[in-house]
Amino acid sequence: MYALQGYSHFKHFNVSSPSEFVAHVEINRPEKLNAFYEAMWVEIGQIFDKLSYDPDVRAIVLTGAGERAFTAGLDVQAASESWINKPPPVDGARVANSSRRHILEFQECISKIEKCEKPTIAVLHGISLGLAIDMSSCCDIRICSKDVKLAVKEVDIGLAADIGTLSRLPKIVGSLSWVKELALSARIFGAEEALAFGFVSQVHENKAKTVEAAFNLAGLIATKSPVAVQGTKELVNHARDNTIADSLKYTAVWNSAMLQAKDVQDALLSGLKKTKPRFEKL
Amino acid sequence: MYALQGYSHFKHFNVSSPSEFVAHVEINRPEKLNAFYEAMWVEIGQIFDKLSYDPDVRAIVLTGAGERAFTAGLDVQAASESWINKPPPVDGARVANSSRRHILEFQECISKIEKCEKPTIAVLHGISLGLAIDMSSCCDIRICSKDVKLAVKEVDIGLAADIGTLSRLPKIVGSLSWVKELALSARIFGAEEALAFGFVSQVHENKAKTVEAAFNLAGLIATKSPVAVQGTKELVNHARDNTIADSLKYTAVWNSAMLQAKDVQDALLSGLKKTKPRFEKL
Amino acid sequence: MYALQGYSHFKHFNVSSPSEFVAHVEINRPEKLNAFYEAMWVEIGQIFDKLSYDPDVRAIVLTGAGERAFTAGLDVQAASESWINKPPPVDGARVANSSRRHILEFQECISKIEKCEKPTIAVLHGISLGLAIDMSSCCDIRICSKDVKLAVKEVDIGLAADIGTLSRLPKIVGSLSWVKELALSARIFGAEEALAFGFVSQVHENKAKTVEAAFNLAGLIATKSPVAVQGTKELVNHARDNTIADSLKYTAVWNSAMLQAKDVQDALLSGLKKTKPRFEKL
Amino acid sequence: MYALQGYSHFKHFNVSSPSEFVAHVEINRPEKLNAFYEAMWVEIGQIFDKLSYDPDVRAIVLTGAGERAFTAGLDVQAASESWINKPPPVDGARVANSSRRHILEFQECISKIEKCEKPTIAVLHGISLGLAIDMSSCCDIRICSKDVKLAVKEVDIGLAADIGTLSRLPKIVGSLSWVKELALSARIFGAEEALAFGFVSQVHENKAKTVEAAFNLAGLIATKSPVAVQGTKELVNHARDNTIADSLKYTAVWNSAMLQAKDVQDALLSGLKKTKPRFEKL
Amino acid sequence: MYALQGYSHFKHFNVSSPSEFVAHVEINRPEKLNAFYEAMWVEIGQIFDKLSYDPDVRAIVLTGAGERAFTAGLDVQAASESWINKPPPVDGARVANSSRRHILEFQECISKIEKCEKPTIAVLHGISLGLAIDMSSCCDIRICSKDVKLAVKEVDIGLAADIGTLSRLPKIVGSLSWVKELALSARIFGAEEALAFGFVSQVHENKAKTVEAAFNLAGLIATKSPVAVQGTKELVNHARDNTIADSLKYTAVWNSAMLQAKDVQDALLSGLKKTKPRFEKL
Amino acid sequence: MYALQGYSHFKHFNVSSPSEFVAHVEINRPEKLNAFYEAMWVEIGQIFDKLSYDPDVRAIVLTGAGERAFTAGLDVQAASESWINKPPPVDGARVANSSRRHILEFQECISKIEKCEKPTIAVLHGISLGLAIDMSSCCDIRICSKDVKLAVKEVDIGLAADIGTLSRLPKIVGSLSWVKELALSARIFGAEEALAFGFVSQVHENKAKTVEAAFNLAGLIATKSPVAVQGTKELVNHARDNTIADSLKYTAVWNSAMLQAKDVQDALLSGLKKTKPRFEKL
Repeated sequence: MYALQGYSHFKHFNVSSPSEFVAHVEINRPEKLNAFYEAMWVEIGQIFDKLSYDPDVRAIVLTGAGERAFTAGLDVQAASESWINKPPPVDGARVANSSRRHILEFQECISKIEKCEKPTIAVLHGISLGLAIDMSSCCDIRICSKDVKLAVKEVDIGLAADIGTLSRLPKIVGSLSWVKELALSARIFGAEEALAFGFVSQVHENKAKTVEAAFNLAGLIATKSPVAVQGTKELVNHARDNTIADSLKYTAVWNSAMLQAKDVQDALLSGLKKTKPRFEKL
Repeated sequence: MYALQGYSHFKHFNVSSPSEFVAHVEINRPEKLNAFYEAMWVEIGQIFDKLSYDPDVRAIVLTGAGERAFTAGLDVQAASESWINKPPPVDGARVANSSRRHILEFQECISKIEKCEKPTIAVLHGISLGLAIDMSSCCDIRICSKDVKLAVKEVDIGLAADIGTLSRLPKIVGSLSWVKELALSARIFGAEEALAFGFVSQVHENKAKTVEAAFNLAGLIATKSPVAVQGTKELVNHARDNTIADSLKYTAVWNSAMLQAKDVQDALLSGLKKTKPRFEKL
Repeated sequence: MYALQGYSHFKHFNVSSPSEFVAHVEINRPEKLNAFYEAMWVEIGQIFDKLSYDPDVRAIVLTGAGERAFTAGLDVQAASESWINKPPPVDGARVANSSRRHILEFQECISKIEKCEKPTIAVLHGISLGLAIDMSSCCDIRICSKDVKLAVKEVDIGLAADIGTLSRLPKIVGSLSWVKELALSARIFGAEEALAFGFVSQVHENKAKTVEAAFNLAGLIATKSPVAVQGTKELVNHARDNTIADSLKYTAVWNSAMLQAKDVQDALLSGLKKTKPRFEKL
Repeated sequence: MYALQGYSHFKHFNVSSPSEFVAHVEINRPEKLNAFYEAMWVEIGQIFDKLSYDPDVRAIVLTGAGERAFTAGLDVQAASESWINKPPPVDGARVANSSRRHILEFQECISKIEKCEKPTIAVLHGISLGLAIDMSSCCDIRICSKDVKLAVKEVDIGLAADIGTLSRLPKIVGSLSWVKELALSARIFGAEEALAFGFVSQVHENKAKTVEAAFNLAGLIATKSPVAVQGTKELVNHARDNTIADSLKYTAVWNSAMLQAKDVQDALLSGLKKTKPRFEKL
Repeated sequence: MYALQGYSHFKHFNVSSPSEFVAHVEINRPEKLNAFYEAMWVEIGQIFDKLSYDPDVRAIVLTGAGERAFTAGLDVQAASESWINKPPPVDGARVANSSRRHILEFQECISKIEKCEKPTIAVLHGISLGLAIDMSSCCDIRICSKDVKLAVKEVDIGLAADIGTLSRLPKIVGSLSWVKELALSARIFGAEEALAFGFVSQVHENKAKTVEAAFNLAGLIATKSPVAVQGTKELVNHARDNTIADSLKYTAVWNSAMLQAKDVQDALLSGLKKTKPRFEKL
Repeated sequence: MYALQGYSHFKHFNVSSPSEFVAHVEINRPEKLNAFYEAMWVEIGQIFDKLSYDPDVRAIVLTGAGERAFTAGLDVQAASESWINKPPPVDGARVANSSRRHILEFQECISKIEKCEKPTIAVLHGISLGLAIDMSSCCDIRICSKDVKLAVKEVDIGLAADIGTLSRLPKIVGSLSWVKELALSARIFGAEEALAFGFVSQVHENKAKTVEAAFNLAGLIATKSPVAVQGTKELVNHARDNTIADSLKYTAVWNSAMLQAKDVQDALLSGLKKTKPRFEKL
């Protein structure tokens, strides 16, 4: 196990390093099926913020502890209790104002997974509901085990998903009919469907094999130039939200600086010499 | 059969209710393979406008009458005749002005299917050409029977499809290569291809089974909170046309009001009590 | 072989016509696996510019000469040499300015494939790396042979792909997880995966069969009205980069002129008479 | 007075024609300072819809009857009463749903002024509050008399303006500081300020002179080619909401048809002959 | 002086309350012409973050301490020193990566002024260079004294302004020719020009009078419904960055909740009773 | 007069250098009031393309030869003749296709003035109609002499302006009412109005004084860091077409490379030493 400094104070997540330049973030509340309450989404935001600038990290794997669940989603009981302690509302406008701020803050925590400069791989297994989709949709790559039970569960608790699933899912898979079927019916879907419609790009036999595949893929990415890898992530995300013309222009400006990396020569030279290049920290 | 008031005067469509809160709109010109002429697209727009605000409707299924066709598309003969009665054109600009207005009006009728606040499921079977793609692309969910014969047929009558297919198809399926192959060649494609590339999300044995599956899915959606369901539709459609940042912001504002629905408590309580919630009309 | 005038002076590409109104552009540097250097991307831009307005061309097939490769991508050796002759840089800003101009010019050449008004079909076979993805992503339709070895190879030479792959790939296939897995890992992927995720829309037994299928498809498209076909291409590309509302409006304006084509009558009449229509040049 | 057929059944507006091809729409509720209630905004929408396609109309002037006011805005009393008759709300979500639909419908009526294909000139005089800004911001040209008292009045009744002022004002004048000062303070501003910051483009001595100037300007515009004039309106509005690149492209497609107007030759010939051209109806 | 709790620990800014619900933020480094170094922009971000949610604040005035300057901009000496302590760069790419992060963080601090939910008024006087334009462009309203000396000063230190001036200035004033003249020449401009081109909306005799006017305007805004005022700010800012169609839609959703404020009744009732309404905290 | 190499072969324009790093482009067809025909707009595009990369040029002034006109716009006679030689049209669609290509090419030539990386100053004097507005709207800065007679003249020849005026004018001045009044009426407007509404940012006594002012301003800009100046132009143009959030992000990426310019140190050092910096070529 490689050392990764400065993450030991986080309470609900284990942050470790299975191999050089790879970080492993494990949601650690298996006794509650890794269900989330407010302190947890604040913390996961802080972790990915920190990983984003950590020069010892070049790829990140996100998993859920235990065999049963990646996460069962929002801890509804905890959420209900936090509402109980609220002062009586003055009127619908003030309730709405308070809710809007709350949703924006919650979204901001989860979006930090997406904003992290390093590539992220979500390993989905077992029960993976609601927030599981919100969070894994913020990751760059999603892979899953055969036993996964996924669902956009929110309509079943009387609300439209608002932490990112409805914003991101239509942009990351290949069938809007399927997205709407899932989001409107809240039905469970499995690994095969997730692969066929492009939500995940790999399916493995069980959780252990999926984690192993994620570590291997992260390990492979971590051997590449961090300048090339982080630029690739940034540029694909930019393309997703912009026209091709704007994306090409942004790409040219981005690479005008990044082509000055020593990494290009190092990579070419290693290619010729058949050696493994060592890239400087970024 | 549940009663659904106020739709009996429509001439070219049967509007009924197979189960509570579900509406069934059937294109009813089977002797002409359900081909459309102007009065029909005006009427289908009016129907979906009315369904959009009808508090007794929470999900809609669109089908074509008869075994042979969902719709063969535009009734070319009727369209030709309406052109015959036109006054001789002054010049190309005035012809274009008149055509532009006509296309915009036609588009507006068909777009009312998309703008309808309630989820819509298209059941595609048999011959499903041209306008079949325009209209079903406006629906939220598309499912089909094994015998379906689909085609973006317009290039075969010397024009680029202009009632919505070319605008919507690239956004609802997962392969632009496939979209262009279909639209440029006008070739027939079937159920298997439609599923593989994400145009439909379910394939069933025959028309009867497909209609049944649509009724079941619509019935399931209709048991959910209408606040949650209609919000989900709105937010996915917004996401499709906006950046993730804009979509998240819009979502927060939307839900700031919608979380005030009694439905959230009702749904949670029903979950605990294992009872079926009854939601207020919307 | 149909005559196609005015393309014989191009050095690195064979431009011929396998059937009426079809052009075949063949990358012709098989001894170097069709790897590209600067003169080649300038030339391919000129060719597609010329084809764009050539009234004798209605569909285009792009292939690579030889059995081994569509293209191995950038000729890294040639690229390195052109860098050697550069004057010593004054500072990082001036290096960046020069790089940005260079990338923009390179992008502009390759984008001419996309801007060509005529439909384009890329035939991918054998080694198809780096620039193979950039160029084929500019084509409307991609088909491949079973032996194809595709890769977004750029991170392996220490840089983020900047000639269009990262801008276009997320918009033409149906899984962002898969796009990022490929672009971050640089791994080889084959025909089956390319089809499953929508990068190609057809797979054929070998190169010969794939070229034959491309010629057939191009031949079929070339029999259609060029007004309808070129409008279809333009409108799908517009839809890809715009909201549905904007796309519908643009479509109405576009077709306000294009419906004045004699082609509509000719196509309808041929349909009735069961004859093959002949459309005027465009 | 020129005859203008088909507008005599409108109750709250006088629609007449001061000169050939010019329509004059007068808000006609002077005893209530031309304040608006629901039937009025429905009606003004219908009027501009009808004018939009009326071939006898090429320019429109919008004024308020009487010396005292263009309009005092919303008839707050009437608005309150319509709220009184509402059923008791189930919850905040259902109240919001109903309000949203109501606002969208109100916006849609007022936006028909903007969507009208013919140029519109608003004559602002006397009291011109709230809805006066919403409606005149939908007009193409605003001119006013020296006595005008303008205000974005909504914050004074406890709400943010939602019928278009906040959406349009930032795009039609030249100082966001001024827009926000007005909208946040609800203070009255006069003709001089309106001209200095570009809200109006002309100021005249009194209402009569302003109406006269509007009729002259409308009369001048009505002598021009309607193809040129209506295209100009459409293209400026498109430019306002799009990038320059998109606007140029849309312009080229628009004019590809419109340059086929006989008007170009007629205008050139008249220029040479020093005669006044007569353009065909559009 | 009204009490305003919780701002006394800020070192470089005085935060006080000249009247009920009004906050006054004073840049307090007059001995250095209020020039900024890193700790200051971090702090001003924190202050506006806190004010944004502070229910005791409904309008904010931003001024610079002393007679000589609002701010002379970046403290170039301090900035240079922070560069001195940097480790030697590995290559241009890594320098760029570090610079990009730094600029984004700096931008984020200053943008918090814009993101603050409460209306902000900048009082510009004396020397107001560089960062003075960046920061005041984030404010909703700008007013100045006659002696103000403004400049977009950055080209004079060899760089393009990157903390917001070039992004915001083109959107808040009425002449792009003037914006570019200022930004390209770095010349000083005064109060008269600032008013004529719409950068400020008021000019006053001297600093004292300008501060007084700002307090009066802030005081007036603070008497209005905070629901109405904060909605107005949000909706104008949304309009600035979106099409009119999108802005209207967002407005309808926003107000669907906000019209449930008791403020509407309170404001109407006060209007009838000629009393001053008291609005609940938000 | 400073030497400027490589521009002597242009026929319709004089390209000279009044001072170091300043280029002067003079439209040189005074006997025809500098009216444009096709060869001229092709040539002006080539000139600005060349100036864009010319390291000896840091600022450009565009003027019209002679006392009478900047330009009278399109040479209508020449334009008519080029239409005479056209083959008879097959149908309205093919005419439209040909017109669209022609307009796009014409737009592309004129847009090269805007795309030129160096700041451009238009000097408007005397007759300045039609294309005068299209071209000067592509310049960064517009100044004029008191005698200028400006008009958006196109509706008077039966068409909507399509070479850029309608796309750019709404974005560069501060009153949409004024833009539409001008574009719909084709009336002449003078220097005072042009200044008041922000079309120009300076007015001078006569042509000679205006040219002198332009040379001085260009000379001043040319003494600044070219890295800073060209970045400023790029970033303001980017801001004009993008949201503030996107513009800030693009700015950070742009400056991540450009802050590596030696110019920053040179400028700071010169500031301290009170000397005039000499910047390296770009």
